[in-house]
Amino acid sequence: MNEEQKEPTPLTEVGEFGLIERLTKNIKFHQKSSLVGVGDDAAVIKNEDEVTVVTTDMLVEGVHFDLLYTPLKHLGYKSVVVNLSDIYAMNAKPKQITVSIAASNRISVEALEEIYEGIQLACEIYKVDLVGGDTTSSLSGLIISVTAIGTASESRIVKRNGAKENDLICVSGDLGAAYAGLQVLEREKSVYQENQNMQPDLSGKDYILERQLKPEARMELVQFFEKEGIQPSAMIDISDGLSSELIHLAKASEVGIQIYEDKIPIDPTTVTTMEELNLNPTLAALNGGEDYELLFTIPLDYHDKIKNTPGVSIIGHVTDKNAGYFMVAKGTESMVEIKAQGWQSNME
Amino acid sequence: MNEEQKEPTPLTEVGEFGLIERLTKNIKFHQKSSLVGVGDDAAVIKNEDEVTVVTTDMLVEGVHFDLLYTPLKHLGYKSVVVNLSDIYAMNAKPKQITVSIAASNRISVEALEEIYEGIQLACEIYKVDLVGGDTTSSLSGLIISVTAIGTASESRIVKRNGAKENDLICVSGDLGAAYAGLQVLEREKSVYQENQNMQPDLSGKDYILERQLKPEARMELVQFFEKEGIQPSAMIDISDGLSSELIHLAKASEVGIQIYEDKIPIDPTTVTTMEELNLNPTLAALNGGEDYELLFTIPLDYHDKIKNTPGVSIIGHVTDKNAGYFMVAKGTESMVEIKAQGWQSNME
Repeated sequence: MNEEQKEPTPLTEVGEFGLIERLTKNIKFHQKSSLVGVGDDAAVIKNEDEVTVVTTDMLVEGVHFDLLYTPLKHLGYKSVVVNLSDIYAMNAKPKQITVSIAASNRISVEALEEIYEGIQLACEIYKVDLVGGDTTSSLSGLIISVTAIGTASESRIVKRNGAKENDLICVSGDLGAAYAGLQVLEREKSVYQENQNMQPDLSGKDYILERQLKPEARMELVQFFEKEGIQPSAMIDISDGLSSELIHLAKASEVGIQIYEDKIPIDPTTVTTMEELNLNPTLAALNGGEDYELLFTIPLDYHDKIKNTPGVSIIGHVTDKNAGYFMVAKGTESMVEIKAQGWQSNME
Repeated sequence: MNEEQKEPTPLTEVGEFGLIERLTKNIKFHQKSSLVGVGDDAAVIKNEDEVTVVTTDMLVEGVHFDLLYTPLKHLGYKSVVVNLSDIYAMNAKPKQITVSIAASNRISVEALEEIYEGIQLACEIYKVDLVGGDTTSSLSGLIISVTAIGTASESRIVKRNGAKENDLICVSGDLGAAYAGLQVLEREKSVYQENQNMQPDLSGKDYILERQLKPEARMELVQFFEKEGIQPSAMIDISDGLSSELIHLAKASEVGIQIYEDKIPIDPTTVTTMEELNLNPTLAALNGGEDYELLFTIPLDYHDKIKNTPGVSIIGHVTDKNAGYFMVAKGTESMVEIKAQGWQSNME
């Protein structure tokens, strides 16, 4: 290809409406419920006989992402996925999103287009429609605020507060990988900042890097529940780490929690990476966050249906409210109290 | 009162969940459609037989507001109202909002509580429910992103693209006041920055300052349409100035526009303020923006119903697509072309 490298286009050159036109020209709808999208004062959605589920999340530069090592397309993708994850956590299906972006002049039109490519890729994969948004300037960093809208039959909605004593506690996928990926990225950033000729050493880390930079939401789990007629008693997505989410769920449900360290699903790459960094892999799972897996409880009756389901691990069971929140440590009988940040042995 | 002045509480002191608890503890619902609000992964809304209308807007410090002269409570109020205005512009009724805020450490917990007071006041007045949101830190400025959700019968939805030749062009309220208010605030800011002992001179400017700092959305107009059985053919809210919105509406509807300068409603305070500043009051109305009035077109048949309606002005009529966008200048027969920013006489 002989195509010349084009200069980035400053935002000021295209104007707000020109920018919106460039960013939204490829939008295609997947949902027949999307009646009116971008280009009017508001979007119009027609959901019949189902409840509407709404969630919103904001990603802030320097807080939630570092542009030094975050590909813009992945950033757009992730900003959608973290919201879809909240919709799935209600046992609902996402249908539409709105996206608002505040960007400083440092961000070019092409950079915003890359972010939108990631947004649209997520829309393709999860079959959601981008129906509205706002694009504005910012005096400093880049901020992406996404609102996701989904639907479910009212009877299928799963809140955080339905867990009952003896229910099984399950998680999808594996935990701690996004945190391990972040540690590797931060390590390589430090190396790079000390010596800008160093090439980053990311070999063999693909899985954990992807978990950090381009996570997925657990669409297939919600589809599995529907297909198998399983109604979880409580569910929450794991954005802040397993410990924190277990406690949210237990508090809302007014129950106790007992999990087993050796049942927590952790990918081998996460284990080896955490060990390389002299960190405990279980800590990555408990406190790392950004896994966007689903944590749910189901009545014991479903045990046979769930025990051999690929991608689902039974990690413990719900106990009485007064029993507290505990993890049985690996290879021992010792009980470790689960805390929202960090964990302490009470067997000293 | 002997109450001591309390020190502002830094955000770091209360933590994310403590903060959310403080900010959302007073939330009360007004809508029976709000099934699940703050405190789960997503909100759940039950709308029967109506379509859902969704809009989102982001307010960025230094771009949309200046904390030097913007009371935080007003800022919270305005961040909601600008979104409700978009819902009304679809001839729909807002029911729920989500609010995401990114705040730097410079913003105290008490400051966020003031913003939330304004948000909740808007919720009271417009009977909308705050059902979700996200609160996060920011490395620099304050950003507020609001999504509003409303409902309407599908047949009542008014888009931008329905205007027909000979329809009347109408606006609610008066235009240019928010812009005039902003000019006064900016003038007093400059004076203050030169001499910090100067007291700002804002006497007699209450109306235009309120229009800038604490605008209202035109709920009563949508109620009036419903009561009178009036179905506008097209509608848009005036956030960027009359010129820009006229052109949006005309382009979407594929029509031409003719308005009359002397029919544009401008408050006397706006006129005197603009004249004090050696600026043209009509320019404030055409290009000022932030009025949050509604611009709409209605078939001629409604003329008798609308002509004596308080708070509604007929400013012109829809013309053929090829006739372009024109304003008949005050006191003359000269036609001035309407442009999105600024306007030029073509009678030179």
